[in-house]
This record gives sequence, structure tokens and C-alpha cells, in this order.
Amino acid sequence: MAPSWRDLVADKKRRQLESIPKDWIIPVPGKDVLDVTRVPSTCGLLSATELQITETKDVDVLLAKLASGHWSAVEVTTAFCKRAVVAHQLVNCLTEILIDRALARAAELDEHLKTTGKPVGPLHGLPVSLKDQFHVKGVETTMGYASWVGRVAERDSAMVELLLQAGAIPYVKTNVPQTLLWVETMNLVFGRTVNPYNRSLTAGGSSGGEGALIALHGSALGVATDHAGSIIIPATFNGLYGLKASSGRLPYYGAATSLSGQEASIYALGPISSSLSGLKTFMKALLGEQPWRKDPRVVRKKWNDEEYALADHGGGKHLCFAIMWHDGIVTPHPPIRRALELTKKALLEAGHLVIDWQPVNHHELGTILNHHWGAGSREDLLSATAATGEPLLSSLNPEDEQTGLPYFAATDGISAYELWQHHKTRTEMRKKYLDHWESTAPGTGTGRPVDAIICPGAASAAPPHGKNAYLNYTRVWNVLDRTTSAFPVTRVNLALDKKPAAHEFLSPLDKFYYELCKLPVSRLVLYFLFDALIIRADEPSVFENMPVGLQLVGQTLEEEAVIAMTEIVVAALRASQSRDK
Amino acid sequence: MAPSWRDLVADKKRRQLESIPKDWIIPVPGKDVLDVTRVPSTCGLLSATELQITETKDVDVLLAKLASGHWSAVEVTTAFCKRAVVAHQLVNCLTEILIDRALARAAELDEHLKTTGKPVGPLHGLPVSLKDQFHVKGVETTMGYASWVGRVAERDSAMVELLLQAGAIPYVKTNVPQTLLWVETMNLVFGRTVNPYNRSLTAGGSSGGEGALIALHGSALGVATDHAGSIIIPATFNGLYGLKASSGRLPYYGAATSLSGQEASIYALGPISSSLSGLKTFMKALLGEQPWRKDPRVVRKKWNDEEYALADHGGGKHLCFAIMWHDGIVTPHPPIRRALELTKKALLEAGHLVIDWQPVNHHELGTILNHHWGAGSREDLLSATAATGEPLLSSLNPEDEQTGLPYFAATDGISAYELWQHHKTRTEMRKKYLDHWESTAPGTGTGRPVDAIICPGAASAAPPHGKNAYLNYTRVWNVLDRTTSAFPVTRVNLALDKKPAAHEFLSPLDKFYYELCKLPVSRLVLYFLFDALIIRADEPSVFENMPVGLQLVGQTLEEEAVIAMTEIVVAALRASQSRDK
Repeated sequence: MAPSWRDLVADKKRRQLESIPKDWIIPVPGKDVLDVTRVPSTCGLLSATELQITETKDVDVLLAKLASGHWSAVEVTTAFCKRAVVAHQLVNCLTEILIDRALARAAELDEHLKTTGKPVGPLHGLPVSLKDQFHVKGVETTMGYASWVGRVAERDSAMVELLLQAGAIPYVKTNVPQTLLWVETMNLVFGRTVNPYNRSLTAGGSSGGEGALIALHGSALGVATDHAGSIIIPATFNGLYGLKASSGRLPYYGAATSLSGQEASIYALGPISSSLSGLKTFMKALLGEQPWRKDPRVVRKKWNDEEYALADHGGGKHLCFAIMWHDGIVTPHPPIRRALELTKKALLEAGHLVIDWQPVNHHELGTILNHHWGAGSREDLLSATAATGEPLLSSLNPEDEQTGLPYFAATDGISAYELWQHHKTRTEMRKKYLDHWESTAPGTGTGRPVDAIICPGAASAAPPHGKNAYLNYTRVWNVLDRTTSAFPVTRVNLALDKKPAAHEFLSPLDKFYYELCKLPVSRLVLYFLFDALIIRADEPSVFENMPVGLQLVGQTLEEEAVIAMTEIVVAALRASQSRDK
Repeated sequence: MAPSWRDLVADKKRRQLESIPKDWIIPVPGKDVLDVTRVPSTCGLLSATELQITETKDVDVLLAKLASGHWSAVEVTTAFCKRAVVAHQLVNCLTEILIDRALARAAELDEHLKTTGKPVGPLHGLPVSLKDQFHVKGVETTMGYASWVGRVAERDSAMVELLLQAGAIPYVKTNVPQTLLWVETMNLVFGRTVNPYNRSLTAGGSSGGEGALIALHGSALGVATDHAGSIIIPATFNGLYGLKASSGRLPYYGAATSLSGQEASIYALGPISSSLSGLKTFMKALLGEQPWRKDPRVVRKKWNDEEYALADHGGGKHLCFAIMWHDGIVTPHPPIRRALELTKKALLEAGHLVIDWQPVNHHELGTILNHHWGAGSREDLLSATAATGEPLLSSLNPEDEQTGLPYFAATDGISAYELWQHHKTRTEMRKKYLDHWESTAPGTGTGRPVDAIICPGAASAAPPHGKNAYLNYTRVWNVLDRTTSAFPVTRVNLALDKKPAAHEFLSPLDKFYYELCKLPVSRLVLYFLFDALIIRADEPSVFENMPVGLQLVGQTLEEEAVIAMTEIVVAALRASQSRDK
């Protein structure tokens, strides 16, 4: 008889606990302690050097010190392993904890550096965390399914092979939501990952394990995937940098996923990092390893220094950014609006141009992603959980956890011919968006179309658990396959971020967001198929002091330029903020 | 009441005839005259200069003379219009004939050059023929469907917009098979396109109109598409050069197609040319126009001179080519084998290395393309012909033309979820092929994996009408999305290309090809779903003097290197052949 899913989970949790050295167990603050960001440095487990290593603000500095031998790979790996384990105890962010394996590899790298005088590759000695979709040979990939407990990977994912080639050290895998299709992080195997800035709020998802871990400096750089906002949302909710590359720029081959074989909106990947330099360093390192030799779907396109120098954007001296204040459906909360205003001010001060962005068909773009997923989601999810019959969650709300088919699997599948028709609609919508973008040239003042859009990554800062569902600020860019980045801007400030008076609403959903406390909040409310969950927008105190980030949107396969423009925006914000101090 | 399809066809044919100036009608040789390649120069319609223009062997020379004003655009356009019309009368290769429009544009270009001293773009003044899938604003796109007669395009296809930007002159559109899914060219609107070297043999397909037209120098450069061999097959059957770019390198947006929305094996495009330089000139010109600004699915990757200089192939001095003598299913006919031998000899003489290529899963790769098409083909084809109920052809054999569902639409459709599973299988097969390619490094003598494969473009030279169906020498590369080229090598020589004695057969189909005259030949025989039609391999005289070409296969999105390596192979062949004279 097959074991019950509860037995599998119990066994897995026991084994997970065993993978943590006993003397790394810390006294965990009670649930009433919401902000745990300072615990890693105060808990006493990490030495002064280990704190210095893990709190190094620039990944490039860390890499330089590793390459020079200033810090050994063993030292750095020990520090990040310790801090990751601390983070896990605080926010429940890890799935696999690979300390012995990581330290063995670190020792090999140290030996190589000692013997040859040369680092193995551009990521020599850097511990890199991995979203639980990536296979590491000999390690389980459960991906939040109890039914997958015990599935040991026979081969590294292409991404992992390339990271190893580049000298990185996989050391932990991080938590995801059941099915991967929520933008929070909760499953029946490992439970819920919470936000280190306020544990009563979500870390976002689906790469919430990465987001929470990196926010606590338990990792300097993690690799995640993004189907509808899974990189950008956790990055903005946790005050981090993230890059969602266009599909095909980075290798997805050999990674586990849900809705496997779904290609109408092809899945994307990218790094999340506490450090801005992490984005560029990761991309240059990965592309330098020629990922197209490992993954047949990766675009043969090297890192392009000309594009990074913004050759297609007039050299980057005078850019024209378009700010999307709202998407025509849901008004972002006041802190997000303030972040956009701060960014606009900073860019103008830095000599750039700023115009407004008119969203085109954002509702329809979101809807078509539902069609792409719904085409076969039910069969996929039922097949993934068939081995044990573990329940599928239909709500992540802790006050009201429901099981049954989640809303994104509630529709019947469609025929391949019908899917072809959706492909055509998607292509027409992508063309319309591209034409709209190109049509902005006369109004930018640069002679070029808009260089990038700046917009919210979400309509609010991290909301309470079970209440993050409006993903249209991100998923439209998945349908359009644009390269996007996330960057932190400010923190929620109750003195500045007042709830606005009642106003004209953009849509019924917008009104819904505004007056939420008047509505029953304990159940999932289906407005548009995917488009409604509940944020108590009328209780601004919920969001106090939470990180507020934004999103930068470039063209398709424009990773170099998006990174360069993100650097420009971040530099402008820093300059502006230091002037205002 | 909707007009009958026969009435629509009659009307269309009448209008087509009217688009030809009366004094361009030539006396067409009787059906017993098989080889009509010399008719354009002997028929007396073209002046000596017009013959010189149309027989210019190098597209770059033509472009240089246009850019310098040595020949005016009107002169060149007139010459190609005349010759295209002659070709059409001989081999029935055209659909739309746009003489007035082309001459008006040519006059504008001449005026521009006169006024500014500068050509409009890199293709200034070059008449470019277009497969009938490309929309030209204000012109019908029938694509071989009677039901589509009268459908006037409201907008240029992205490809056409870019050609116009680059200075080219669209002047004719060329014939395709009904449904586009045959590798011959025959439909109920325009009839059958025949091979100019022997009109009793096929011009190939689906870009057979392009192949036959260009072989007669009625066009120097045409733009075609390739779903399973549609560029490579007509190029090899007509003694021409062709390039099938990987999907996403060139803009397909806004072109008509069948199985529209099918993306499991994404459609490819590329040029066919009588001139080797046509391939590079076309690609450089098109990529220079930034096609990703017109088509959201085009990869943002400029023409790359480093890749053209074979930076990824050791600079190109000592390449290792792998010859695929057969695909494990069907033995190529003796002339194809001889072409491979000639090429091997030439490459060795030129200092390159040559090893054998082991095909991997070629049968399965072909089969999965059937699954991709069959997923929704029946609904698509019935919907395309629904307006008039025109019959679908189930055979292109003139002795036995059948109607009913063609074999590639004979299966029921499948669900989107089932299609997802085929996507996964395809990706695994692509990965397996890539790994196989990479694994050749230890045996090449260069330290690199094989630089390119050289293989047949088809198992024979152009066969009789209705008998070209073995497309597995090309369609595997569509599934794998490899960049491939076609290049001419020799002609069938009955003294050299003897029928071999009976031998061990690779497969039942191989035996079938060998002993074909013993079998009934008048009906389509379905061996493998797609994989059987009939070539009278035991009657070598059928193929006498026909062009024999081969195919060069590179990696995905490696257009620059494939062009450069094709140039190397062609130069080696020329050197070797001149030595042997």
C-alpha cells in the first residue's frame, strides 16, 4: 500500500530537521515578534566575520574576496549555511539543506584556488540558493507536493550544471507554494514561508522562499523562476532586486515545474539578490557558460556589452521613462504611488525625461494567461498529486484554508485547436503592445520610443497571508515576454502614506480593493477568474514599515539594457534620497 | 448565395491573365519539351541588357549596380517582371503579378537616388519575389485556397514592411500547395508548378513557386517559409541556394499560414536565391532593419560579424564536418550519395576534417511533427475551406488525384493537455540531439564538437509529380529548430549514378524505395503516417540531368555561422571541381 501523504510529510520534516546541526538551533522569538530581520545578527550563532561576510552589500565584493582568497569558500559557505538555517527557523524558507555537500564542494574550490592560483569561474565559491524546482543530483525535488517526497533527482538541472561550471556552490533549496501557481508560498509539505519584515504578512510567491531567505541575508543570490510574477513579487515584498529574463535567455531545461509542457506563455527565470550587482554578475556569468550548449531552447546570444552600454537607448545619458501610475484596473496603494513619485523626481533630477504610460489591454492580457494555464491545468495538478491523493489547496488564507480544486484548475481543459486560437490572440496582443510602444517616439523628446516603463510590481506592499492575489502588475509582462526587474525604493511610512478619500474607481475590482473591510473577507472571492483576493486596504497600519519596490519593464530579450537602466534608476534614487536627507 | 469555388477560381485566373501585358505572352513549348531552362533567353522577349541583368550571378553585383545607378531600379524591375512572366508561362509559378505597382515603386526609388545620391537601403531597387503567404497591402492573399479568393490584405506582413524599408521591390507572389503542407506545389486555384529542368518532375514545395521562378532567373532572391522542408526541398530540386533560419530570427508576423497558432514546431522563414551571396545579403539587410521592432516574436539579435567570422568554430580554418550518409530510414539515391562524396573530397582537399554523422531518433523526430500538426489540423483545414466547401486534396498525383481529407488531417484532434505532453517529448528529443552533438568533441580532432552536418536535403533529386513525400531529411531540423542551408553540388549523371545492386535495407520503407516498380504506384501508400510516396528509384533515367543539392545543418539561431560554413563548402566544391576538370 502506498504511504499516506501525511506519513510522507512527517518523514520529510523529520529528515529536514536532521539536516540542521543541533548547535545551530536558535531560540526563536514568539509569534508576536513580527519583524525578525535583526535576529540573525543578534542571535549569537554567527561570528563577527560571518556577519561581515553575509552582510556584504555587493555580490561583486564578495566574489572578489573569494577569488583573491581573502575569504575561503569554506568560510563563506559556512557563514551562509549558518545564516540560512537561522533564517529558516525564523521564516520557514528552506526545503533542502545541503550543508555537508556544500562544504565539501567549497573545500574542493579552495584546493583548486590554492593549487592553480585561479578561481574556477566567475562565481567561484559563491553559495547560491535555488528555488525548489531546480534538481540537484542525489537530492529530493518535492516542489511542495507531498506526493513527490522521495523523488531523488538523477541529474542536475541545466541551470545547476552551469552554476557549478561557473564555480557556484548550491547549498539550500527554497520553499514554493503547492502547484507553484500562487503568488504566496504555502504547501502541505513544508508549510508557509512568512515575511521577515513582518511575519504576519506574506513573503510573496511563488519564489517566496528565495525572497524571505535573501531578505535575511541567508543568501546573497538565489535563482528563481517566474510564470506570472514569481520573481518580481517576492523581490518587491522583501526589499530586494530581481530580474525576470525573457524566456529563452536562461536555461529552464531539466527543472521541475507545474503545468509542464505549457508553452503558450513560456516560463522565465532569473536571479533575486540583496545586491544590485547580483543581477549583472549572475547574467554575465551564466551567459558566459554558453547555456545554449546545455538547453536547446536557450537563445544563442552572448552577454552583449554594447546593449549594456545602452547603444539602443542613445547611450543612456538622456533616457525617457514612462511611468504607469496604475494599470487601469486596480489603483496601487499610497506607498506604491509615493514610490513612483519618488522615482519620477529622482529621474528628472538626474536629467532624464519622464512621461506617463498608458496601459493597453492589461485586463485582457491577464485573462489570456488564465486561458493558457487553464487549457490543461486540472489534469496536470491532479496527475501531480495522484500518487497519494493529497488535497489541493483552494485558498491560502490561514483563517479559512480550503481544499478542493484551486480556481486556476477549476475550468475544463480545451482542445489543442482551441489553444492554437489563444496563441493567435496572444500574438496579436503582443503585436499591439509593441506597436503602442513604438508609437510613443514622437512624444518622448528623445527621438526614440520610450526606453523603459516604471510601474508597480504589485498593487500594495506585502499583504497578510492568503490575501495576495492581484497579479496583473506582473503577469502581463509574462504574456508579453518582456524583460523586467524589481528594485527597492522606500518603506511604508504611515505619516506619509495616508488612505485617500473615496474617489472615482477604475473598475469594480478597484472599488473592492478600496472598501475591503465592508466585505466578507474570509473566503476567496472570484471576481474575474483569477483577479480577486483581499487586501485590507483600509487598514494602512497593517503595512507599516514594509519594503516598497517597483518594477522596470524593458523589451523582450533586452536583459543587458534592463539591468543598465535599473542601475541608472537606482543611482538616481540614491542621489535624490541623499540630497533630501 | 456564396459563389461556388469553381466560379471564384475562374474569376481569379481571368484576373491573373489580365495582369500580364499582352505583348509579354510568348509561344510556350509543347508538353513534350521537358527542359525549359533556356527558353527565357531564347524567347526574344528580353533585351540583351535585360538578360544580363537577370542572369547576374551575384546578387551583390546587382545591388552594387543599382546603388551606383549603373542600372536603374525601373530597368532592373522591368527585366525581372518580364522574365518572371516568361517563367510563369513555362512552369506556372506565380499567383499575384504586380507589375504596375512594382514599376511605380522602382520609379520612386530612382528618384530618391537621383535626388539624394543615396540608396534607400541595402536592398535598394532589388525586385524580391514573395511566397503567397506574405500579405502585400491591397493585394489578394489566396494561399492556394479557392475560398480565399478575393481576400485583399489590409496591411503588409512584417516581412514586407521590412523589405520595403530596406529598399526592395515586391513584384510577384509565388505558388504554394493547397494547405501548404505538401512538399510539392499544386492547388485548385492556380494548379501545379513544375520543375523548369524537367516539367514532368516536381518543383518541390511548399515554396515550389519560388524554386521554379528563381531557377529560371525570374527572380534573384525570394522569401519563403519552411515548416518541414519547404525552403530546402525546392532549393535542392531546382539547383538553388536556400537558408532556413531558426524560428524567431526572421519576422513571420502578419503572414498567412495554415495550422495558424500551431507553435509546437514553430514555423521558420528564409531566402531562396540563385546566388550564394543572396543568403548573407538578405539576412544582413533584414536584421539591419531591426525586425524585433515589428514582430514581437523575433529574437533581439543583430547580425553578428564575429559569428560570421566563425568565432565559435575556431575561426573556420580547420572545420570538422559530419556527413550523414543516410538517416537510418531511407537510403538516398545514387546521385545524392555521389554529391556527398564529392563534398567530402572537396572538404578534405581544402584542409577540413570530415567524420560520419550518426542520426539519432530521426524517425521519432518526424513522428512528433505529425503529432504537432495533427493536434488540430483537421479543424484548421476544414475551417479554411468552409466558405465554399472546396474539396481538400488527398493526393497530388496527377494520375490519381484524390479528394477527401489529406493524410495529415486524417487524425482526430487532441486535447491541450495531450499537446503539452508532446511538447515535453519534443524538448527531451531536442536535448538528446544537442547532447549527442556536444558529445562528438573527442572525435573531431578540433577540440570542438562537430561544426556542421552535411546531409541530403531529400532522398532523391526532384521526382515525378505526386511522388515526393519523404520529407524526413528536412523536417527533423524543423523539430530541432536548427539553422540549415541548401546548396547545389552537381547534376544527375546516368553514367556515374548507377542503380546499386539489391542490398541490406535500412527499413521497410528503404526497401520500398528501392523496388518501387514492382509495387502499384498509382495510389498514395501510407507506410508511416507521413512517410511514403513513390519514387521510381529503379528508373534512374527519370532523373537525368536534374540538379542535385545538399543541406548543411548548424545549431539553433546560428544563421551567421551556417552562411559562412556554406560559403566554405561551396568554395571547396568549386576548387575541387575546377581541379578535376
